[in-house]
Amino acid sequence: MFFAKLQIKRPKTCDRSLNLSLNRVLAKDVVAEVDLPRFDRSAVDGYAVKAEETVGTTQFKPKTLKLADKDVLRSMHAKRVWTGNALPKGADAVLMLEDAKEVEDEVEVWVPVTPGENVSKRGEDIEKGQVAVEAGIRLRPQHLGLIAALGVDKICVFELPKIALLGTGNELVELGSRLRKNQVFNVNGLVLASLCHELGAETLDLGIAKDSVAETVTKLNLGLEKADAVITSGGTSVGGSDLVPDAVRKTGKPGIIVHGVAMRPAMPTALAVVDGKPVLILPGNPVASMIGFEVFARPLICKMLGLKQAESRFKLQAKMTKGIATSLGRRNFVRVRVFQQDQEMFADPISARGSSMISTMTHANGYVIVPETREGLEQGESFTVQMFDAVKGVS
Amino acid sequence: MFFAKLQIKRPKTCDRSLNLSLNRVLAKDVVAEVDLPRFDRSAVDGYAVKAEETVGTTQFKPKTLKLADKDVLRSMHAKRVWTGNALPKGADAVLMLEDAKEVEDEVEVWVPVTPGENVSKRGEDIEKGQVAVEAGIRLRPQHLGLIAALGVDKICVFELPKIALLGTGNELVELGSRLRKNQVFNVNGLVLASLCHELGAETLDLGIAKDSVAETVTKLNLGLEKADAVITSGGTSVGGSDLVPDAVRKTGKPGIIVHGVAMRPAMPTALAVVDGKPVLILPGNPVASMIGFEVFARPLICKMLGLKQAESRFKLQAKMTKGIATSLGRRNFVRVRVFQQDQEMFADPISARGSSMISTMTHANGYVIVPETREGLEQGESFTVQMFDAVKGVS
Repeated sequence: MFFAKLQIKRPKTCDRSLNLSLNRVLAKDVVAEVDLPRFDRSAVDGYAVKAEETVGTTQFKPKTLKLADKDVLRSMHAKRVWTGNALPKGADAVLMLEDAKEVEDEVEVWVPVTPGENVSKRGEDIEKGQVAVEAGIRLRPQHLGLIAALGVDKICVFELPKIALLGTGNELVELGSRLRKNQVFNVNGLVLASLCHELGAETLDLGIAKDSVAETVTKLNLGLEKADAVITSGGTSVGGSDLVPDAVRKTGKPGIIVHGVAMRPAMPTALAVVDGKPVLILPGNPVASMIGFEVFARPLICKMLGLKQAESRFKLQAKMTKGIATSLGRRNFVRVRVFQQDQEMFADPISARGSSMISTMTHANGYVIVPETREGLEQGESFTVQMFDAVKGVS
Repeated sequence: MFFAKLQIKRPKTCDRSLNLSLNRVLAKDVVAEVDLPRFDRSAVDGYAVKAEETVGTTQFKPKTLKLADKDVLRSMHAKRVWTGNALPKGADAVLMLEDAKEVEDEVEVWVPVTPGENVSKRGEDIEKGQVAVEAGIRLRPQHLGLIAALGVDKICVFELPKIALLGTGNELVELGSRLRKNQVFNVNGLVLASLCHELGAETLDLGIAKDSVAETVTKLNLGLEKADAVITSGGTSVGGSDLVPDAVRKTGKPGIIVHGVAMRPAMPTALAVVDGKPVLILPGNPVASMIGFEVFARPLICKMLGLKQAESRFKLQAKMTKGIATSLGRRNFVRVRVFQQDQEMFADPISARGSSMISTMTHANGYVIVPETREGLEQGESFTVQMFDAVKGVS
């Protein structure tokens, strides 16, 4: 829903070598300029024949054909072919190796074949003029394979979006520095960048802004200039004030569109647009910022990549091992660890408490979305889980 | 099963910056050298207090505490704290902003708090000495975040395996060349490389060997010298002869271990080991080579990456839209297109025919494994699908 409503400028495109295009998003349909296969070819090892000349044969009443090695098959002749070989002109079927017997320069036909038998017909895979791969999909190995088979080695893909990332907070320091008292590392910088990279977007690290509107405005402006979108973390309800939203308002129009979302965690999330570029303001708590990214940044980046459809998490049904209480009026994102027991899937809720506990995200492999109309889930209730990591022990 | 039995030398390890380690496999447990959080900190915006001094308060019978801004909280004092701030010494709870009223340099306490209330205790997320992230897992954003929070910025990961890829066949030409009559492009080279890259392995392109044992031996030797494993495609039952298996036998010991697998497609697959390095010989048909890769190369590469568990496809249950016939005595891998209708998942089998039709892999988004003990699946039967691409239209 969010994905469909997002209004994003169509991303720029570029031509790119097929062999460098894994995971890129196709920007123009690839239309077959040839039939595939390009010629009628044998689907087995055997003898190319004229089907009508094999009618009525059995092992006890075989017919004998003369072996030939020409591109044109004459009457009462057969040509040896291997899987994938082109059929000679005039042949319309292939007799399997084991259904015949070669004697010197002749072959005894033991079994009749029907026209088209054991033949991959020209155009059977794809016909000239058909759309082979549609624009707006992410190119997986199988798509590259089909495009390569068509003889295309340059394609038109979307350019990668660049997302600028800004951490805010007086207590933050960069990874690798020495922590002084009461300081913490800018964990979100690394996590949000990694989440962007997993989707295939590029990132620009704007570093850390102290709790100062002026400094935040300067860094936001840099991000808006150099990147296609900005994601900040922290400073959305710092000390009761809304430092980053205030700063965003000073960078341009229309500014903040939404501030505060009826969800948990990540309630103080704000969404903004400045001069046509999206700005996503996430909370500083690492778990809240990851959930906020999941809900808002994932569909946004999918759209910026040029994808026709947002990439969703794989879903499965699992039974809750415990009941959980959630807040009525808020959409709750509850982390769970899904495991399999006796062919059944179970979801173990992970400490609903503390969106500051990043270890809950490594213990969980999915989350359930408890709607705002409910006050929780019951033990034993079967519910849909969105999986962000594998189920351990299941192969 | 196959994964567990694979005997692979433990891959080499190297130290690597955390921020370059997304998707790498951790080689040594990361053990917490500090508590996380490092100090008791506030989970909300409010006032750090001594819980016992708030007992019995109500809005109509408030207690008054003096505001202070020191690192040590004296008796009958409170200190303003924001989410994430360290608690002053002597404080053991945080009163929420809305449960108090600030009047000049004092604060009226309206609600009692219990010890520990609204406090993230030191070590609550992870305690010093605990294993934060276990060796053998692939590092996702959440793992990097947890490691970063612990102040670790260099970790020990496994080196990436390098897989050499060789296409064989007189009819093959490289992408980008001009096709002459009856030639086809080396599609498998690109597809197999892309499948390796998706898993995170590096590849070495050995190009194409003509149907000659001598040429194949030369290229295999180069691959065995420069890479950790070799995957070939084609030439495993060429013209009734086993060109690549014959060549592998000439490269070293023990050579071919398995040749021919009771599966469909990819029956002529062969598995070999030469001087301790795995050699996987896949059929030339593009679909067969992809299925062969899925069944044998995926678990092999997972093990070579250092993963403790093979990464499996996400699975779901879907109802077959049509019956399909499969061969008794062979494990059949049937491509299907899964779609959702009225909250139910359906699997549409894609032309069981022709493992040469690469378009069947782009139309499908998963496959079902029909066991060798069955002769097919029935229409309406619910069966497990292994998903290799998304379900369209589901978000």
